[in-house]
Amino acid sequence: MRYAFSKRVRHLQSSAVRDILKVVGNGDVISFAGGLPADDLFPVEAIEQAFSRAFASGTKALQYIETEGYAPLRELVVERMSRKDITGFTANDVLLTTGSQQAIDLFSRVMFSPGDIVLTEDPTYLAALQVFQSYEAEAVAVESDDEGMIEEDLEAKLRNLRPKCIYVVPTFSNPAGKVWSLERRRMLVRLAHKYNCLILEDDPYGDIQFNQNETYTPIAALDDGSRVLYTSTFSKTAVPALRTGWIVGPFQVIRMMAQAKQANDLHSNSLSQQAIYQLCTHFDFDGHIQGVTNLYRQRRDVMVDCIRQSNLPNAHFVEPKGGMFLWIELDERVNTTSMLTEAVKKGVAYVPGAPFYAGVPKTNTMRLNFTHATDEEIKKGIHLLSDVFSHTDDQVKTVI
Amino acid sequence: MRYAFSKRVRHLQSSAVRDILKVVGNGDVISFAGGLPADDLFPVEAIEQAFSRAFASGTKALQYIETEGYAPLRELVVERMSRKDITGFTANDVLLTTGSQQAIDLFSRVMFSPGDIVLTEDPTYLAALQVFQSYEAEAVAVESDDEGMIEEDLEAKLRNLRPKCIYVVPTFSNPAGKVWSLERRRMLVRLAHKYNCLILEDDPYGDIQFNQNETYTPIAALDDGSRVLYTSTFSKTAVPALRTGWIVGPFQVIRMMAQAKQANDLHSNSLSQQAIYQLCTHFDFDGHIQGVTNLYRQRRDVMVDCIRQSNLPNAHFVEPKGGMFLWIELDERVNTTSMLTEAVKKGVAYVPGAPFYAGVPKTNTMRLNFTHATDEEIKKGIHLLSDVFSHTDDQVKTVI
Repeated sequence: MRYAFSKRVRHLQSSAVRDILKVVGNGDVISFAGGLPADDLFPVEAIEQAFSRAFASGTKALQYIETEGYAPLRELVVERMSRKDITGFTANDVLLTTGSQQAIDLFSRVMFSPGDIVLTEDPTYLAALQVFQSYEAEAVAVESDDEGMIEEDLEAKLRNLRPKCIYVVPTFSNPAGKVWSLERRRMLVRLAHKYNCLILEDDPYGDIQFNQNETYTPIAALDDGSRVLYTSTFSKTAVPALRTGWIVGPFQVIRMMAQAKQANDLHSNSLSQQAIYQLCTHFDFDGHIQGVTNLYRQRRDVMVDCIRQSNLPNAHFVEPKGGMFLWIELDERVNTTSMLTEAVKKGVAYVPGAPFYAGVPKTNTMRLNFTHATDEEIKKGIHLLSDVFSHTDDQVKTVI
Repeated sequence: MRYAFSKRVRHLQSSAVRDILKVVGNGDVISFAGGLPADDLFPVEAIEQAFSRAFASGTKALQYIETEGYAPLRELVVERMSRKDITGFTANDVLLTTGSQQAIDLFSRVMFSPGDIVLTEDPTYLAALQVFQSYEAEAVAVESDDEGMIEEDLEAKLRNLRPKCIYVVPTFSNPAGKVWSLERRRMLVRLAHKYNCLILEDDPYGDIQFNQNETYTPIAALDDGSRVLYTSTFSKTAVPALRTGWIVGPFQVIRMMAQAKQANDLHSNSLSQQAIYQLCTHFDFDGHIQGVTNLYRQRRDVMVDCIRQSNLPNAHFVEPKGGMFLWIELDERVNTTSMLTEAVKKGVAYVPGAPFYAGVPKTNTMRLNFTHATDEEIKKGIHLLSDVFSHTDDQVKTVI
């Protein structure tokens, strides 16, 4: 039987990331595909203790709560935000969500009418593009270099397209592993004010910073509190399964998002919110983040070394200064999408770069996650990848 | 500053339920307002043990999982559904959600384009109406009596309006506390097939059944598996804080909803899904539900007795055979919305009936929850309510 789905989802197809995760979960494939944190560092015992503490408050820990989320955790988020110079907000300006994914979704739900424009980097976070598309907003790519969006192109698009919002992942981006310079961040805020546009700053990776001597000021810290919505999550620093993220920003927008969230799911898992609060207050959470960061830095180093020594054809990449991803551009003739099946057959998985583009995709790109595989797996996996792509000339001939 | 919100949320206002919950949470008011289960029966210890069992599987309990949710719990749901004669489905036809609220939301997201029609009972679940509205679908009320929708009106509306879906809460409904007869359930399925329309059966209360000698066959059990989506939750039988619900139905629709869910939040809290699975397999969950049902039956009896002995003007109600709500119609001149502030001032809260209507609201109605307050509170609360409304003649004069 045929079901008459809504206009907004007729384009929906199972995403590449998702299909790959499904394949890869089943076999012996070394996966650089998923955005998975390293399981071996999950603070299982500390989290279990945090749950015990939450349970100690008895039955009220298990009742319905307000849509905005567990108030003490919202207060703690305000405090953690102020350490990043994001100030002037109270717990009322914070909405707890089911991962930062839900924050992007609810923001889009309250902001975008069909046909509205959202400006993005190119490439940008795939699942954000899917959200924008599901609300029938049009994502338009702004030209960027290694420092962020390019002012001329951004201003032209702000002037001509009158977008509702600019969506950016400015610190250790997914997928490109890039960091915006301070100048570009300032420029972004200035232009957003000039053209009366909101900024959605997506920062799930900001705490995973490899060089502690550098400072990457969040864009929200450069604003007067009226134009930037900042979202992040405990999924990468604590664990994903608790699905606890947050968004902070202008109260009017947060309030509208809370009302939309009430229709979406009434509220997120509040026992986990209480456990995360207990984790942050009774466990050296910042020390834990440092440990995670140290391991990820080491794994990045291993991956970078392996790639440099590999036969990957004309591999170009910027060494990530944090986060979880390394973005590679290969020889122009390579098509990473069509080669994926071959790679998985040989025992290694990645995410092809094409779906991350709002504009014209570069089909010779791929995203590699360096946080989930062990050093040995990284060495073996890059070797396999190199093997898959080193015969580019032959492959190109075959395709022709 | 003014924010340009999307068309779909411009109508959104904080709901009556929500505002009342906020007020009532702060004071000494006896609340019949929220849909809160009785905290004192929460199986805190069993849930804590269930979490311990989930933690015992180590770090993998805390990693990302597939969007559809923890597979063993989906299998368990299939088994529990088959006990209700909902058969022919596998774990692939089940999507785990953040409460059944998210199931209603995702179903609406993949089904309704702006202007699409959804038929509902009148009154019906307030937060479902909010979801339909947020996707710009139009809810149209079908005439009902104590046995369910009336065939003539339903068929006329199916023929003339060509709705996408009929939304029903057929067993111990929220807000009306009503049960559909088997004949009406069969009639609904027959007409849905005849007019190629889907049915969304919302059944959060079906397990809380006061008279064990009666049988209320779910509508999904009367279908061939192609037309009915059935959603329920562990929020009322276990606890709300774990936000674990499910929806089961035709695979094509479930798959599309899973894709929409991927954009919405990637997946729901998976640690809680594992804990619920452990709870159901290592704890006498059905015995627990029986205990909850016994208490709720007793509280219903107390409330029914109190109302019968009260001075509530021309109170008309049907004694609920299960669930959590009692619906009262008062003297036609009473306006429960305008009287709410007065009632809360006197120390008792309820939900005014008007927002539950898709059609013309009856402003002399109210929803009373009988599961959260103790016997003593119920007695005192109904006495206070009676006090608020017993001077209807005076009030009407004042208003005139």
